[in-house]
Amino acid sequence: MNKEELYQLIVAKKSFLCVGLDSDIAKLPKHLMDCEDPVFEFNKQIIDATIDFTVAYKPNLAFYESRGVEGMQSLEKTIQYLNKFKGQLFTIADAKRGDIGNTSKLYAKSFFGNEDATKNFNAVTVAPYMGEDSVSPFLEYPGKWVILLALTSNRGAEDFQLLKSEGKKLFEHVLEKSEKWGCTENMMYVVGATQARMLADIRKIVPDHFLLVPGVGAQGGSLEEVAKYGLNDSCGLLVNASRSIIFASNGTDFADRAKQEAWAMQKDMEKLLK
Amino acid sequence: MNKEELYQLIVAKKSFLCVGLDSDIAKLPKHLMDCEDPVFEFNKQIIDATIDFTVAYKPNLAFYESRGVEGMQSLEKTIQYLNKFKGQLFTIADAKRGDIGNTSKLYAKSFFGNEDATKNFNAVTVAPYMGEDSVSPFLEYPGKWVILLALTSNRGAEDFQLLKSEGKKLFEHVLEKSEKWGCTENMMYVVGATQARMLADIRKIVPDHFLLVPGVGAQGGSLEEVAKYGLNDSCGLLVNASRSIIFASNGTDFADRAKQEAWAMQKDMEKLLK
Repeated sequence: MNKEELYQLIVAKKSFLCVGLDSDIAKLPKHLMDCEDPVFEFNKQIIDATIDFTVAYKPNLAFYESRGVEGMQSLEKTIQYLNKFKGQLFTIADAKRGDIGNTSKLYAKSFFGNEDATKNFNAVTVAPYMGEDSVSPFLEYPGKWVILLALTSNRGAEDFQLLKSEGKKLFEHVLEKSEKWGCTENMMYVVGATQARMLADIRKIVPDHFLLVPGVGAQGGSLEEVAKYGLNDSCGLLVNASRSIIFASNGTDFADRAKQEAWAMQKDMEKLLK
Repeated sequence: MNKEELYQLIVAKKSFLCVGLDSDIAKLPKHLMDCEDPVFEFNKQIIDATIDFTVAYKPNLAFYESRGVEGMQSLEKTIQYLNKFKGQLFTIADAKRGDIGNTSKLYAKSFFGNEDATKNFNAVTVAPYMGEDSVSPFLEYPGKWVILLALTSNRGAEDFQLLKSEGKKLFEHVLEKSEKWGCTENMMYVVGATQARMLADIRKIVPDHFLLVPGVGAQGGSLEEVAKYGLNDSCGLLVNASRSIIFASNGTDFADRAKQEAWAMQKDMEKLLK
């Protein structure tokens, strides 16, 4: 999916919501535990309930890997289900990968290069610490996206990302350098909603790139602030909410409550898009 | 496995060799492709052939994940096989993970916290970009180790890791800060052999920590230089070789050739340990 197609999806749904499928098996509604694959069943019902209000879905791989082979089966079924809605949504593997070139090439293949295209994602999150050759193998797949960590939403972001060197913070170096590795058609950045006021400075460096913004909802970031400082002519934002939507209820009404939460966010986003 | 046990293993084997199980299915000897699980069969024969000369084994997860559920089954069988040699080797999941605390907790569980202990590793590689709360969940498992990326062996290491801030390079900040998050009993660092001359400076910051050193062999680093600048009183080094050992031959003699390569490295290491 290219940038224009993503933008048209946002226009059509009047939403720039990304739903994080952080589907922790310990937190699932109890009545699902009798299903053959409770996590997939949960994801399927969440997707069905929220798809009208949601532009992107983002499974975080930790929640699948931590269940070993079974978890990877749940993930595979989830991406295959998402890919049935071709053109109606954008998929992000939240994996935060990054390794030497030889190895990143294989990670890229995991997410983008399966012979069975129903197993491929549109985008993957990548960590920048190892530099260009750890990122560029992901950029070799036409129509696929790298979402590079820039300024994250957690407390630990302050440990290294804000270190100043040659007058610029580390995350600003990451933006400036990496911006040249790809383009606005294959590179996005992770910027935490908890850092909304820094979005103005970030927009000076990457005015036209899409930003993936986690941290609204359970982590306390403000949607209004994110929109104020982050929106650009092509929207340029995907705002992620995970727990506040998928675990809005852990009863039999979980999907309906997720729908209400996603809908509420979509309505807020519709106003902000005007 | 604690630091003293690891050191005793090094003393007993007169080796500080780590074999990287970067078992790319595309590069396996053809005669193995009829096996039910060629990658596991390959790993098993490599382990059997090299264990007398090898202290640690390090599967890189990219080579398993890129094969989806099947690949994860090969990995699971491999770690379970390695764990049969309890006390005779050290296991490293080369995963380069790191996410917000909530999520890193689950990654830590994937590698250290399986109820079935035969699936657990001794150590996991972690990326530092997201700071303390992305690393600390891995440090909560007694006897388990974080191996944090400091100065990597690839060209891209120069992009950010060498940026100077407050008189210190980024990787030096990583060493200084993270050194306080754990201790010499649960934290190691990745330092590329291609950066051997920087090891002297690194030893000033972390004199007593173990270092995992990739980049000898196919990537061109020198074992002598690494030992010269990196050895400490408890050895303090695990030097990794992957392709140069496991793919020394891709014929039916692959395991024997791997043995010869590992043995040659062990003999070099024995001299350097004296």
